[in-house]
Formats: sequence, C-alpha cells, structure tokens
Amino acid sequence: MTYIQGGVCAAQGFRASGIHVGVKTNNTDKKDLALIIADHLCNAAAVYTKNVVQAAPILVTKDHLKNGKARAVLVNSGNANACAPQGVENANKSCAVLAATLGIDPADIIVASTGVIGQKLPVQVIVDGIPQLVQNLSYTGSQNAASAIMTTDLAMKELAVEFELNGKSVRIGGIAKGSGMIHPNMGTMLAFLTTDCAISPDMMQQALIHATNVSFNRVSVDGDTSTNDMLSLMASGMAGNGEIVSDGVDYQIFLAALCDICKEFAKMIAADGEGAQHLITCIVRGAKTEAEAEALSKSVISSTLTKAAVFGADANWGRVICAMGYSGVAFDPEGVAITFESAAGKLMVCAHGRGLSFDEDLAKKILQEHDVTIDIMMDAGKAECTCWGCDITYEYIKINGDYRT
Amino acid sequence: MTYIQGGVCAAQGFRASGIHVGVKTNNTDKKDLALIIADHLCNAAAVYTKNVVQAAPILVTKDHLKNGKARAVLVNSGNANACAPQGVENANKSCAVLAATLGIDPADIIVASTGVIGQKLPVQVIVDGIPQLVQNLSYTGSQNAASAIMTTDLAMKELAVEFELNGKSVRIGGIAKGSGMIHPNMGTMLAFLTTDCAISPDMMQQALIHATNVSFNRVSVDGDTSTNDMLSLMASGMAGNGEIVSDGVDYQIFLAALCDICKEFAKMIAADGEGAQHLITCIVRGAKTEAEAEALSKSVISSTLTKAAVFGADANWGRVICAMGYSGVAFDPEGVAITFESAAGKLMVCAHGRGLSFDEDLAKKILQEHDVTIDIMMDAGKAECTCWGCDITYEYIKINGDYRT
Repeated sequence: MTYIQGGVCAAQGFRASGIHVGVKTNNTDKKDLALIIADHLCNAAAVYTKNVVQAAPILVTKDHLKNGKARAVLVNSGNANACAPQGVENANKSCAVLAATLGIDPADIIVASTGVIGQKLPVQVIVDGIPQLVQNLSYTGSQNAASAIMTTDLAMKELAVEFELNGKSVRIGGIAKGSGMIHPNMGTMLAFLTTDCAISPDMMQQALIHATNVSFNRVSVDGDTSTNDMLSLMASGMAGNGEIVSDGVDYQIFLAALCDICKEFAKMIAADGEGAQHLITCIVRGAKTEAEAEALSKSVISSTLTKAAVFGADANWGRVICAMGYSGVAFDPEGVAITFESAAGKLMVCAHGRGLSFDEDLAKKILQEHDVTIDIMMDAGKAECTCWGCDITYEYIKINGDYRT
Repeated sequence: MTYIQGGVCAAQGFRASGIHVGVKTNNTDKKDLALIIADHLCNAAAVYTKNVVQAAPILVTKDHLKNGKARAVLVNSGNANACAPQGVENANKSCAVLAATLGIDPADIIVASTGVIGQKLPVQVIVDGIPQLVQNLSYTGSQNAASAIMTTDLAMKELAVEFELNGKSVRIGGIAKGSGMIHPNMGTMLAFLTTDCAISPDMMQQALIHATNVSFNRVSVDGDTSTNDMLSLMASGMAGNGEIVSDGVDYQIFLAALCDICKEFAKMIAADGEGAQHLITCIVRGAKTEAEAEALSKSVISSTLTKAAVFGADANWGRVICAMGYSGVAFDPEGVAITFESAAGKLMVCAHGRGLSFDEDLAKKILQEHDVTIDIMMDAGKAECTCWGCDITYEYIKINGDYRT
C-alpha cells in the first residue's frame, strides 16, 4: 500500500469542487461550500456523532443512506445547521436544488455542515452558489473541496492510498476537517472518503465502523463531542475487482488500507487541533485488554493538565499516571513505567510507579519537538493501544473565547 | 444557621497553626505545613479520591481512621507524596515525630499532602519544622493553617457556621484548598472540617458522603481527578448536645449545615480555579431524575469549549446544548431552554432547542460579570441539580504549562 496524490478524487470516478458562497460572512476569501460527485451511483455508508443533539444534515443523511446508495456529497462550513430554525427544511432545500442542477435524485445526496451551532443556515447563499459549484467540478478538484470544509483548521487535510486487490489496483482517498470540538466518540469531525473498490454497502458499513474505532475515535482535542460529526464513504466500483461481499482476504486487505488512511487523517486532525503546537501520541502497552489500553491512553491524551504540561515542555509525568488513575481502569500503579520520546531522544521518567531522577534538560528538549510520544508500559498483559491528541495553548483559548464573531 | 468567623477553630476544642518549613523550596514566604489539633480525642471520618493512583498519605490516613478516632491533622503543601519513593515511610515518619512532640498516638493523626506528584517528600524539613509548628498552635490559628495548605490557590478558604441543635449552639468550621486537578469525583481537593457537635463516627461518615456528593462532587475546574483528594471531619462533642447516633431530626439539622458549608467551600474552589476569571453556576431544572440533572450540569461545567466561551463573554449556547448531548443522558433537545444570567441581567438565548435572536450587547454584559449562571430548563420532569465550575483562561495554561519549577 502506498500513499498517492489526488485526495478525494484519487479513486476512479470522482470529481470535486469548492468555492466561497457567503456562509462565512466575515471572510470572503475563505471557501465555504464543497461538492464531491461520483460519475455513477455508488454504494455508500457512513458513521455519525453519538451526541444526543444531532445537526439537521445528520438526520437528512441518515435517511438518504438507508438504501446504501449515494451519488454526491454537499458540505458547507461556517454554520453547523444544528439547533437552528428550519434545519431539516434547509438541508432538504440544498439537496433539492443540487439534485435538480445535477439531474440526480435528492435522496442520493450526503449532506453535511460544520460551524457555529444554533444560527439559521443562510440557505439562499448556498442555493445561489450551487450552479458555480457544479460548474467548477473537476477530477483534480480535491484541494478545493478540502479547503472549503475547513473552519478553524490551519492545515488542509487530503489523503489517498493505492493498493492491490486480487490483481487490480484499488484506491481510497478522502478529505477531512477537524480542529475543535474533537473527542473520541465516532469521528468527532467531518471526513468524506471515496474508493473505486467494488464493495457492498454492508461490508462498507462494517469496515467504516471498525476503521473509525481504531482511528478517529482515538483522537481527542478538547473532550467535546460535536453535534455534526460524520464520516462517509462512497464506492464507485470502477477498480474492476470482484465485489467484496463477505469477510474474506479481499475484505481484510481493503480494511487494512481503510484503517491506515483513517489513522493518518486522525493524526492530522490531532496535530491541527485548535491552537496546537504539538501532536501527542500516547501508546499504552502491556495492558490486560485492548479496551483497557484504549481507556488508559484516551484518558492521558484527554487530560487538560497533561496537555498543558506538553505545551510547557514540562516532563510532569505525575499528571500522566494521575490521568490513568481516573480512567476507570483498575491497575497496579507499581507496574507502570513512563517514557517520553521524540526526535530529540528517549527518556524513562517513571518506573514501578515511582519517579526516576532524570536529565531535565534532555526532557525539555524531547518535549519541545512537535511530535511527542508518551510511552506507557504496564505489566498487566499483552494488549496495547495508541491514541492521539494535542497540547492546549493560549491560542486554543483565544480561538474559542470568541468563536462566533 | 449563620456563617461565623474562626474557620477550622470556630468549633470548641480546636487549635491550628501554619508555617513555612521548606517543602516549597522556590518561595520561602509561602507557608507549607499546617496542623490542626483537638483538645481531646475526637470522633472522625473522611472521604477520599477515587483515583486508582492514591498518594501515600491517603493510604496512611485510611489506616489511621479505621477506628473512627482522630486527634490531629497534619498537612503539607508543595509536594503530593504520590508516586514518590518511600511515600508511606515518609508519611509515617511525619506522624511519628508529630505524635512524639504532642504526646499522642500516631494512629490518631490524619495526614495529607498536596503539590507535585512523583517527587520524594523532603521529610526532614517537615520533621525539623514540627516543634515550631506545635509551638504556634492557637485557638485563632485557622488562617495560618488555611494559607499553609494553598498551592496555586489565590484565595485562602476558611468558613464556619453556627446553628442550634436541641437547644445547644453547635459549630462546624473548616479550611480547604483547591485550584487545579479538580473534577467531580470525591472532594477533588483538600478540606479539613471540625465540629463541636457530638456525633458518632458512623453518622459522621454517612453525613460526609452525602455532603460531598452534593457539593465537592459537583465542582469541576479541569476534569482531572487528583491522587490526593481528601475531606476529613473531626467532632469534639464539646457543644454538649446529645450524641447523634441515628438518622433523626438532629442528624438532619447537622447534615443540612454540613451540606451548606461544603457547598460554599465548593463554590470557593470553583471560583478560585487555576487562572479563573469567572465562577460558572449551571442549574439544570425539569430533568427526569436528580442523577440525570447532575450528569447534564456536570457535562456543561466540564466542557472546555463552554469554559472558553465564558472566558470570552461569548454567548455561545450551542456549546452548552452540545455538552448536554454528550453527557450520556437521553433527552429531547426540543424541550431545552437556556438562559444566561448574572448581576447584569437575564437573557433566554435558546427555547425548544432552537436559537432565539437576542441582544448580543446585553449577553456580553451578562457574561462579563464574575458570577455567571447558565440556567437550563428541560421538560422531562421535576428534578434539578446545580454544579459549579470556572472559565478556562490564558492564565490556566500559563500556570500548568510549567508547574513543577
């Protein structure tokens, strides 16, 4: 499996575009409407936020994907269309106008929104923008779509992989956005994937759930699970492989590639967390079960105090073991060893649950690198899990202290 | 019931002192060792952190309180004595030296620590300081003890109440510290209470658990549950009331006073959260059960994004309903109304789960006040709950980015 260019258009049969239509009123330079369209009707699947409060486009998309088919993805940034008046009506209206313009069934459209909660979607600017959006569609349009779904993201997120399946070359590509309101519970962001693999909707759904659980659900930026999270996958089948309809070798190869690209997206989202200066990777090894390893690792990357310590390049491992202690997992603290690691070096700071004396200067150098790993070794078993997070910074507070204006 | 002066020495039969001995090496002006002593052996009870990783003094105190009796409380700040070499030995050594100096049984000492995790307790400076600490004991020494248990706290926390029980005047007083690593799960801080009420250890324990659940467990500063949290209560019995040994009217009167003082301490801790500029009170009303109201309210005051919005005086109620949505409680978003309230006014910003158009200037004025209330009305039942938190600020990041040095 290799990473390739092309993002959400890397797989055969997908075009994309992204333009500014005016949902983002305060910045006319920023794109705010994205479209992905398949040449033909695709098999499709999606996973959604588990927040009890769900944005209107989530409700509409769930309905549209009941038949496991989709043709297009329409996304706006700048307004979440959640807890907003006429939310479902406005999502439906966007779909209806797009469908009429494209000559497709509105029920084959995946619709998504991201931005401020509780404000009415300015649906007319979306409707007015659709002709231009459709006109701009291109087989090399992934970056336009990727930039149009960004909110406070600093980095555009697009990825694609290529791998061989039974002699055929298959691609999975996608675009994603993250940044704030990111916490392990479903995707906690938006990501739209395409593939030319031939695969049934049922197997796609199964693969998406698995891939989400080992990738996006292992990322935390701020502990807030959004109302709008969605991850969708459309499969054009144009790679020409025999359709995957059950859990055999082909499925496992497809799943491995899907998990890999989702993990890379997850890391990109963590690294681009609002205001983040560090990507924090926490590996828990030697745990009793993978579920326990995951709970411990998530607790560490979600700990505000640990995040603040990494921001300050302070090797305060006490906060790491403290966060493990309130994770809900029972364990023997005396079996814990903690190592900080980065490109600058590797330093064990705690063994048998007790502090070691260590080189503070080296510790600082290690933690000043952009990518920092907290490696936790336990003596409870053989299971392990890796989760990803970021530090908390002045900039995070600034971004979120005045987000709506 | 009325609030009175005197703090932890307000109840009859208690002296206190607090001095600098050198646990806090970087600031010789700051007191770091506190002592509370009863004139006679007291009935005693305590509740502790539920963190799996427990500091050495927690283990020692649990052992000492098995018989429901205590005579003194010894507390150092500046070092948590958690995950530290010779933790239990050092806690025991402090108790042994204090016991010898006072002529009491070491097993009648409640010992506690707060500060950095993982560093060896400088027990010799504590031992060397004990004679001076004992010499300074005074019936008006509460403020010295209160200031000696502070870490990043900006405000000293002492309170006392007086109430009548069966014709006798009874007092409950105490000192507390909070600031960081504060999250609802046991006390999430240190608090030491005294009373002259005559009450059995069993009833004290029952009352403490109840009072903790409706006060300290409803506070969150940063979602991190500490390794060192402890709340203890000593009862001298000198008020002369008939000993409370069962759940009758006298117990209810005592419990009401205990809950009240604990709630006031809880609010003081939230308001003095690290870097906090606002006390946030979240009231959830009209919930199905008190447990659901509490889960919803806790989720709101724990939401980093909501905290950042209050810091920025941004009426971003979408983050409030989003936090409710991931609280784990099932509810109908369309039954939710949200009102922001403070000394500057009152403004409903969301009704039936939808945004209302509102006066943004008034909203800003309301949120710029120090004490801000988020009032959430649901249509699910008649239960309610209030929790307390604070905003997240640049200062929080600064404090926690470099805490150990």
